[in-house]
Amino acid sequence: MKEHENLKNIGFDTGILPKGNLNSIADVKGVTVGHVTLSEGTARTGVTAILPHQGNLFREKVMAASHVINGFGKSAGLIQVEELGTIETPIILTNTLSVGDAYQGLVKYMLEKNEDIGRDTGTVNPVICECNDGFLNDIRALHVKPEHVSQAIENASAEFNQGDVGAGKGMSCYKLKGGIGSSSRIAETACETFTVGTLVLSNFGQMKDLTIKGVKTGEAIYKTAPLHNDNNPGSIIVVIATDAPLSERQLKRLCRRASVGISRTGSFIENGSGEIALAFTTANRVDHYNDNATIAMKMFNDEMIDPLFRGVVEATEEAILNSMIYASPLTGRDENYRRSLAEFMDHIPGSIYPATEGSEQND
Amino acid sequence: MKEHENLKNIGFDTGILPKGNLNSIADVKGVTVGHVTLSEGTARTGVTAILPHQGNLFREKVMAASHVINGFGKSAGLIQVEELGTIETPIILTNTLSVGDAYQGLVKYMLEKNEDIGRDTGTVNPVICECNDGFLNDIRALHVKPEHVSQAIENASAEFNQGDVGAGKGMSCYKLKGGIGSSSRIAETACETFTVGTLVLSNFGQMKDLTIKGVKTGEAIYKTAPLHNDNNPGSIIVVIATDAPLSERQLKRLCRRASVGISRTGSFIENGSGEIALAFTTANRVDHYNDNATIAMKMFNDEMIDPLFRGVVEATEEAILNSMIYASPLTGRDENYRRSLAEFMDHIPGSIYPATEGSEQND
Amino acid sequence: MKEHENLKNIGFDTGILPKGNLNSIADVKGVTVGHVTLSEGTARTGVTAILPHQGNLFREKVMAASHVINGFGKSAGLIQVEELGTIETPIILTNTLSVGDAYQGLVKYMLEKNEDIGRDTGTVNPVICECNDGFLNDIRALHVKPEHVSQAIENASAEFNQGDVGAGKGMSCYKLKGGIGSSSRIAETACETFTVGTLVLSNFGQMKDLTIKGVKTGEAIYKTAPLHNDNNPGSIIVVIATDAPLSERQLKRLCRRASVGISRTGSFIENGSGEIALAFTTANRVDHYNDNATIAMKMFNDEMIDPLFRGVVEATEEAILNSMIYASPLTGRDENYRRSLAEFMDHIPGSIYPATEGSEQND
Amino acid sequence: MKEHENLKNIGFDTGILPKGNLNSIADVKGVTVGHVTLSEGTARTGVTAILPHQGNLFREKVMAASHVINGFGKSAGLIQVEELGTIETPIILTNTLSVGDAYQGLVKYMLEKNEDIGRDTGTVNPVICECNDGFLNDIRALHVKPEHVSQAIENASAEFNQGDVGAGKGMSCYKLKGGIGSSSRIAETACETFTVGTLVLSNFGQMKDLTIKGVKTGEAIYKTAPLHNDNNPGSIIVVIATDAPLSERQLKRLCRRASVGISRTGSFIENGSGEIALAFTTANRVDHYNDNATIAMKMFNDEMIDPLFRGVVEATEEAILNSMIYASPLTGRDENYRRSLAEFMDHIPGSIYPATEGSEQND
Repeated sequence: MKEHENLKNIGFDTGILPKGNLNSIADVKGVTVGHVTLSEGTARTGVTAILPHQGNLFREKVMAASHVINGFGKSAGLIQVEELGTIETPIILTNTLSVGDAYQGLVKYMLEKNEDIGRDTGTVNPVICECNDGFLNDIRALHVKPEHVSQAIENASAEFNQGDVGAGKGMSCYKLKGGIGSSSRIAETACETFTVGTLVLSNFGQMKDLTIKGVKTGEAIYKTAPLHNDNNPGSIIVVIATDAPLSERQLKRLCRRASVGISRTGSFIENGSGEIALAFTTANRVDHYNDNATIAMKMFNDEMIDPLFRGVVEATEEAILNSMIYASPLTGRDENYRRSLAEFMDHIPGSIYPATEGSEQND
Repeated sequence: MKEHENLKNIGFDTGILPKGNLNSIADVKGVTVGHVTLSEGTARTGVTAILPHQGNLFREKVMAASHVINGFGKSAGLIQVEELGTIETPIILTNTLSVGDAYQGLVKYMLEKNEDIGRDTGTVNPVICECNDGFLNDIRALHVKPEHVSQAIENASAEFNQGDVGAGKGMSCYKLKGGIGSSSRIAETACETFTVGTLVLSNFGQMKDLTIKGVKTGEAIYKTAPLHNDNNPGSIIVVIATDAPLSERQLKRLCRRASVGISRTGSFIENGSGEIALAFTTANRVDHYNDNATIAMKMFNDEMIDPLFRGVVEATEEAILNSMIYASPLTGRDENYRRSLAEFMDHIPGSIYPATEGSEQND
Repeated sequence: MKEHENLKNIGFDTGILPKGNLNSIADVKGVTVGHVTLSEGTARTGVTAILPHQGNLFREKVMAASHVINGFGKSAGLIQVEELGTIETPIILTNTLSVGDAYQGLVKYMLEKNEDIGRDTGTVNPVICECNDGFLNDIRALHVKPEHVSQAIENASAEFNQGDVGAGKGMSCYKLKGGIGSSSRIAETACETFTVGTLVLSNFGQMKDLTIKGVKTGEAIYKTAPLHNDNNPGSIIVVIATDAPLSERQLKRLCRRASVGISRTGSFIENGSGEIALAFTTANRVDHYNDNATIAMKMFNDEMIDPLFRGVVEATEEAILNSMIYASPLTGRDENYRRSLAEFMDHIPGSIYPATEGSEQND
Repeated sequence: MKEHENLKNIGFDTGILPKGNLNSIADVKGVTVGHVTLSEGTARTGVTAILPHQGNLFREKVMAASHVINGFGKSAGLIQVEELGTIETPIILTNTLSVGDAYQGLVKYMLEKNEDIGRDTGTVNPVICECNDGFLNDIRALHVKPEHVSQAIENASAEFNQGDVGAGKGMSCYKLKGGIGSSSRIAETACETFTVGTLVLSNFGQMKDLTIKGVKTGEAIYKTAPLHNDNNPGSIIVVIATDAPLSERQLKRLCRRASVGISRTGSFIENGSGEIALAFTTANRVDHYNDNATIAMKMFNDEMIDPLFRGVVEATEEAILNSMIYASPLTGRDENYRRSLAEFMDHIPGSIYPATEGSEQND
């Protein structure tokens, strides 16, 4: 496993804000991430779970919002997030055709932990997001099973791997290897300091468009490695966490800034690229059982929210680049192959990752 | 002026919740309404102003939301209400082609009261809603002038007339005379009691569809009074006020229930009927100048919100009927004529308004 | 099986437009509906499939739109419907906690019929809608299995049962037995005649609010049959089909009118009632494989769309009442019990259903 | 006047697609732009009109859509664009506090040209977009008058000035001088070739964030010219025109890509930056008077839409840069001052504009 200590304050310098200690979504206290990676036979896929806090999420929901940047996607659960402004399950990422199995796995997990669901109280709203890993993964084989969801949840930790792990195992980004990436930023306001963390499942973009810190790195790589024989549609999921006390409306505003971070890596949001952002705050929670008509909460002063917006942009941009730099090259179904960005370190402007480490990972 | 004492606890019994003392939007403490009615020459139009509270609205904004039921309409200001969740001016109602003059009048009023706008701080978001009174009013003559806005604001009072007054002067509802109507309901939760008030500018519907307390009153009236020689498109604006501490998200949920109240009066939301709902709470306010990053606020327990939803429905239904019963018959441009619902009291199920009073009003 | 011939031109007379021959969604030519009903042991649930046409839906998509009336629900697939304006699978209805299994069943069915999915082309967007039948059904037992989806699709026919069948088996409406209901209307414009059909999965409302043709039938029933010992949240799914050539925008306008039909039955759209409308047209189709940059299509003249709007309202209102009148009384898990509206025929205004037939059904 | 011939094929090389002949929105045949610039006394403001075609827009509407990127703005008319999918007036740009006067001017213009409005047919939906030029302009003085709207419309031509003209007179971009900018791209599909043109009213951004072709030009300029003593909120309006036959849904998809173009210039979409995109096609038109129930139209094959998306991104990015490079330095109210990007040509990567020409303009 990569030494997490080494990641402190390293990574892509995509902006001006300082990073959190882990430079990951886990810098938002309480957030953990777990993977199940499936890579036997024709499987190049998996499940990733993001836990907004370590308590019972159904009983103590986190305030949340989502934004659909491009709706060519099959994510489940966003309708209720929009209506009620809360997330009440771990957030599960997987491949497109396995949303149903992941949904069912998450339902089973939630039923097990909450005997009241479907009996003394209503049902539960599973949140499942997805990208299409069909270029490397035999997606028609439906490798993901419901039980992988609870396993991913149980694997969750503040220290987690990035790159071609979990749901990111078979994903491609800018026709190189993509997958799971994460990053964080510290947002200072006049009064207080808050953390914004992002985690992406990256699977989008044309190689020639890849832009790193303003440089058209993809064009240069393309000259070296033009082969990526496919016309697969892509997608990206961006999960944003913060400890700043935002309202649902404000969390949606954060989500909208994810598209700026994506844009900075060169994408023009292709037709086939399902792009979804999802944000939650650990600072505003809603009890499932509550006898009071009114609930005290905090919202942010919109006039001071810009550092958080900037944090989302920078951490989204870096998380995408991290998802690529951490990923190893991979051969998938039918000998389909993706190279790793880490193989092209000399094309990366101001790179600080040693190429030898960048391609290393496991879970 | 109609004796307001007489209105206490009377009106259309459109549901099961008790009404407020005034049975109007002014039952939400601090809310006032003012009219300017223009009825000389070819003018059958005017301006109505709703003040969410009696302080400086720009400095102390109310939390708010809107919902577009049918967007065949020209209301201004809703984009920012959606983004920031606040209203910072009186809400102005007028006719469709006078939105610009009303906008300009409201800008002037706000500039006068706030020397910082456009200098030391940003601009201001005027909220103007409209219906098309072109059947009775010579709408092409642009009778409304900017100064009518400040006059309407200055006329504002917790006691205000309904029917063919203010912006409602030339409006038609179910091809009878419509205009301004208001109502309120008391919503009791397990813990606390809150008030919901509505004010409508009614200008929609086909006569045959008019339904009062479930009875197809319009069909009966149509047999008596079939003449309404026009095919004018209609609209309705529903303004909802409450003292319950709702978030912007929850205020939008209130707005969505306005369409149920409209539906109960028989409408099927015609193509040409621009239908907009706007809701604010007096209980959550946002200071324009605030040095803190976070703002304490209250939101409602969604599990206890049903009485408020029911209140919106009942008060919207009644406000529409009130807008009709209070309106006098009116002859407008080119001898166009609308009769008053009050002329057909014997068709109204369980009516309690004496016909002689119902058609009386002035301002 | 109920004699379908007998249904011709009977049913609830909820408006002024004529009905189609079958008075069901199948009056829109090509549309069929199939059920799998699960009622052994603690199961009171099932699956209902709606097929927009009889060809390969993935290859020949129907133009579609959706509208979330109240988003307290877990339907899947709507994000892509919104973005691309098409439906490319049968529409599947089931219970809330089985959305995942139904999703997976639909994926398997689509993969079987389309070898290109996930290989030579992208993935597929399954559309699954749901209500919570947990009062009568042991919803925690997850009785629905993926294979029930293909069975329901194979059962599809223009003649199908209503009431407590398929996904409707365990649903409740106004605290009486609800389920599957359908209806249709003929919309005449100046030039041409079109059909609008609806199918609902009904599971919402408080008994006292039930309104039939303007009469508060529920209040009367409540005095006779007050026992419905639960506080279960409800929901309703409204599927709208038409042969009128509407654009996605216009189909969304149809969806918005579904809420008027719901409102006419007495609901005020409770907090917990997830209400979703979905509309498609059989007249505008999109080929999955198409070599041209532009596609000829037809849209409707918005100025002539009112008869379609009215048709949606009337057919939605009647479909809800049909879902109740066709449903038999049912005892479910833990001896939970729902009576049938058909038991209270003398409370129904202008009823034409003989009580003895109304409660009869099977599939 | 700047020699338009010189602009042919020059400008910022922001991507890979070829540009149109004029490199402006007027490359979409039929589109023209006119300005009224007000710069006497404390006025640094104006009006810009965009005409989608040269016929009667009310009678022959263009299909259109909009997208609110950040709703801290006061644009009028978007609600009806969303509902009906058409624009029926010239699009007017002006300053925030003059939206009302511009609205009234546009109403008057439309009434004059269309005697049926408000008489034999309904009203009209004026589309007015705005940015806040209060840093340079004495915005409280309300310099814009209704008559400036018809003057701007009458000034409209396929050849028009950019920079500090019309509504752009007092605008600032990245704390340098901004205003009106335009650009175009040629989008080639497998079958046909289409044009995408954009016009922006630019008024947003922090100097340090300004990025040109990936290079942080703003940081370099900031070291040279740090003085821009203000904290004014900004905004940007992006108007997109195309001759590709898109549906309203697809035009909205174009609008969403405008934010990518904005992002590429360095913005993170600040809280106070009202960002609105508006798109229309000249290829799908809707007659106001039409006796048919159905309308033949064309939509685009979504699978081939990517070149159009890319065109929007590149043309938006370049239009913003053009708005800056064409603008002269300007002193406004209270000696507030903005320098021009053209003064810093040596900081601009791969610049081709001679500094002496870049700062020249008039109208």
